Amino acid sequence: MAKRSIKLGALVHGVGGNVSGWRHPEVLPDASVNFSYYKEQVQLAESGKFDLVFIADGLYITEKSIPHFLNRFEPITLLSALASVTSKIGLVGTLSSSYSDPFTVARQFSSLDHLSGGRAGWNLVTSPLEGSAKNFGKTEHPTHDERYKIAEEHLEVTRGLWDSWEDDAFVRDKETGVFFDPSKLHRLDHKGAYFNVQGPLNIARSKQGQPVVFQAGSSESGKKLAGKGADAVFTGHENIEEAKAFYADVKARAVANGRSANDIVILPGIAPIIGKTQEEVERKYEEIASLVNIQNALDYLGRFFDHHDFSQYPLDEPFPELGELGSNSFRSGTDKIKKTAKEQGLTLRQVALQSATPRGQFIGTPENIADLIQKWHEEEAGDGFIVYSALPSILRDFVELVIPILQERGIYRTEYESDTLRGNLGLPIPANRYTAVKT
Amino acid sequence: MAKRSIKLGALVHGVGGNVSGWRHPEVLPDASVNFSYYKEQVQLAESGKFDLVFIADGLYITEKSIPHFLNRFEPITLLSALASVTSKIGLVGTLSSSYSDPFTVARQFSSLDHLSGGRAGWNLVTSPLEGSAKNFGKTEHPTHDERYKIAEEHLEVTRGLWDSWEDDAFVRDKETGVFFDPSKLHRLDHKGAYFNVQGPLNIARSKQGQPVVFQAGSSESGKKLAGKGADAVFTGHENIEEAKAFYADVKARAVANGRSANDIVILPGIAPIIGKTQEEVERKYEEIASLVNIQNALDYLGRFFDHHDFSQYPLDEPFPELGELGSNSFRSGTDKIKKTAKEQGLTLRQVALQSATPRGQFIGTPENIADLIQKWHEEEAGDGFIVYSALPSILRDFVELVIPILQERGIYRTEYESDTLRGNLGLPIPANRYTAVKT
Repeated sequence: MAKRSIKLGALVHGVGGNVSGWRHPEVLPDASVNFSYYKEQVQLAESGKFDLVFIADGLYITEKSIPHFLNRFEPITLLSALASVTSKIGLVGTLSSSYSDPFTVARQFSSLDHLSGGRAGWNLVTSPLEGSAKNFGKTEHPTHDERYKIAEEHLEVTRGLWDSWEDDAFVRDKETGVFFDPSKLHRLDHKGAYFNVQGPLNIARSKQGQPVVFQAGSSESGKKLAGKGADAVFTGHENIEEAKAFYADVKARAVANGRSANDIVILPGIAPIIGKTQEEVERKYEEIASLVNIQNALDYLGRFFDHHDFSQYPLDEPFPELGELGSNSFRSGTDKIKKTAKEQGLTLRQVALQSATPRGQFIGTPENIADLIQKWHEEEAGDGFIVYSALPSILRDFVELVIPILQERGIYRTEYESDTLRGNLGLPIPANRYTAVKT
Repeated sequence: MAKRSIKLGALVHGVGGNVSGWRHPEVLPDASVNFSYYKEQVQLAESGKFDLVFIADGLYITEKSIPHFLNRFEPITLLSALASVTSKIGLVGTLSSSYSDPFTVARQFSSLDHLSGGRAGWNLVTSPLEGSAKNFGKTEHPTHDERYKIAEEHLEVTRGLWDSWEDDAFVRDKETGVFFDPSKLHRLDHKGAYFNVQGPLNIARSKQGQPVVFQAGSSESGKKLAGKGADAVFTGHENIEEAKAFYADVKARAVANGRSANDIVILPGIAPIIGKTQEEVERKYEEIASLVNIQNALDYLGRFFDHHDFSQYPLDEPFPELGELGSNSFRSGTDKIKKTAKEQGLTLRQVALQSATPRGQFIGTPENIADLIQKWHEEEAGDGFIVYSALPSILRDFVELVIPILQERGIYRTEYESDTLRGNLGLPIPANRYTAVKT
């Protein structure tokens, strides 16, 4: 398959970093609800020719939640506001298929797509946190398996609604008075296990046909959904072997579903720390890690396990046996934590501090990081990366120091290829299902 | 009660005007999905110191729907995109309480409020069109009465969620590591007839405390809801007597609910046509009205009556007897159409053409229109007006020709009083319910 150049996304958090990242001298402590901050970061990413900005989300907080989760912008509104102050960068946001109506989801992302000239992307998640149900009038959070069944049907309906109008449906002939061609307007009439939606949608297809659909769960169900219906996958891996296996697996699933391996883009997350020397790198890591106290770290860890209270266990004994706890929320994440703790014989303190401040591989000098990116890309561990910046200056360093190296090596764009997100990611414009039938 | 200066809203439609308005030489035929068009109109309104822009909405279309409804931006996304290209004007949009989750509504409007520095407004509607149910997996559209019961509880929940955080909850002290004061975070724990929502909301209160809540139904249930819980009312009247009666009625209901008459702003809609002479006014009205053919007009009329097919009746005989038809959708509107037709002995053709191109009172020279505005305001027919422009040039004429007259007379602002919508409308910032209890 033809090699794509490296694709890049910027995961922009407000007071991100780690559970105590907001205390870093460089961080605006209100960044999560400060539009100027987001605007500046996203315009910076656009100056670095990033394919997209990625806005994460969640639907449930308690007083133990980390600062960024407690008080942050809602993604649809934030991305729409960013649309009018950017011109090329893709705008991707998380929205839960477990707690939303396909009609509203289809409309909002389609509207964002029109507003931005074809730059919208939906990160479809199933909402890991069990408490989410309580904010949406449900007696219980659906099981992991059921959430993915809902997700699959939700996506089917949403894509169906996006095709309500064929691309040339709007004639708009002032002379004859013909505004549209009724034969090119289609009602979906979906009746399924979870959704009944008639349609049609009250907005046309946009320049990129349909918004780009991301999937970000790496469990078995997540990979199945990705192979079947996602355009892009945001994943996370601790080493290149794991990433390569995941990459091959998901691409094979896409092919098994009758798609081309090029029809899906796989983007592992990386969290760079960049320094001119190894000493500077270590100093920067310490600056971030030292902000975390153990109670914060335990609270943060607890969130992955459905807000489990870890303060009940001794800190310096082996990580406790948790049974099935966590398997109905962030399943792939909690499985990995349990496995790593057991294999490496880690204490609770070690697990909590590492979870709070992961020390990934992508730390080093700009050349070190460019080398790693090139290697992962060449060896098919990813089609590109989602870059998470623990501090705003990291994104700046990445744009100013790492990107020029990638450009010089000819493996990253110097100009956007397209005005649309699909165009830049090298994804095809999906044919309208009704038009396709006719031709 | 102290007299407020005149408040103004701009109702911006894309291809508006009337059912055939898109055919007018001046109208961009794709205006309903053209962000540049909206940006220009809203910046024009802001240059005229309008309090707010108002974006209407609907959740159900058929092939008989008028062009603007078929293919238009979704309000939340559009208003968010407008937030970053404006600085003072309020951003008000329609969202249905019958087909939405309070948690999502509260989040999106609160996020828009933060993004815009306190300029968000929610026009709460109950969705008149029966077909809406089919797009949201419901077997039937709730009755008019039930929709208003749902609306009342929805608003109660949404306002409760907006108070989740007290205004001074976020301490953000980097030294001590205290991000927020847990005693100032409140769970709603609402359990009601239609909604069960735990909370808290994952976003702080904004600069204006809570987004401004509009109500736009003028039926008995609509007035009841407005008196009890709305901050502003968008209404419509054919003459000043009717408007004065409505104004007095709703203000009295607010007072009966323990509120001040000043706590609610009443804004009748007006549709000006402005000319330098009476001849120019007539020519402009004709230009608009002549675009409508009778079939378009019948379709448009049908929409108010649940997409009733009016082509089955003779055109030049008295308006047909319709019984209860239409009373579960746009009740106040359809009651008025039936009543007027009977009182004035109108034919179906006359009713259809008048509905398609209403010829309101606010047509004439700039001085005529300024006089009418001043009279309606002085006689308490409205605290201000929502200006609907059948053509983009009408908003320009209004800003350039009518507003200077109002300013000269000292009854309209020459500068914004505030950066927030509440501030400009002269509405108080609502005290947080939990803070209020303590003090």
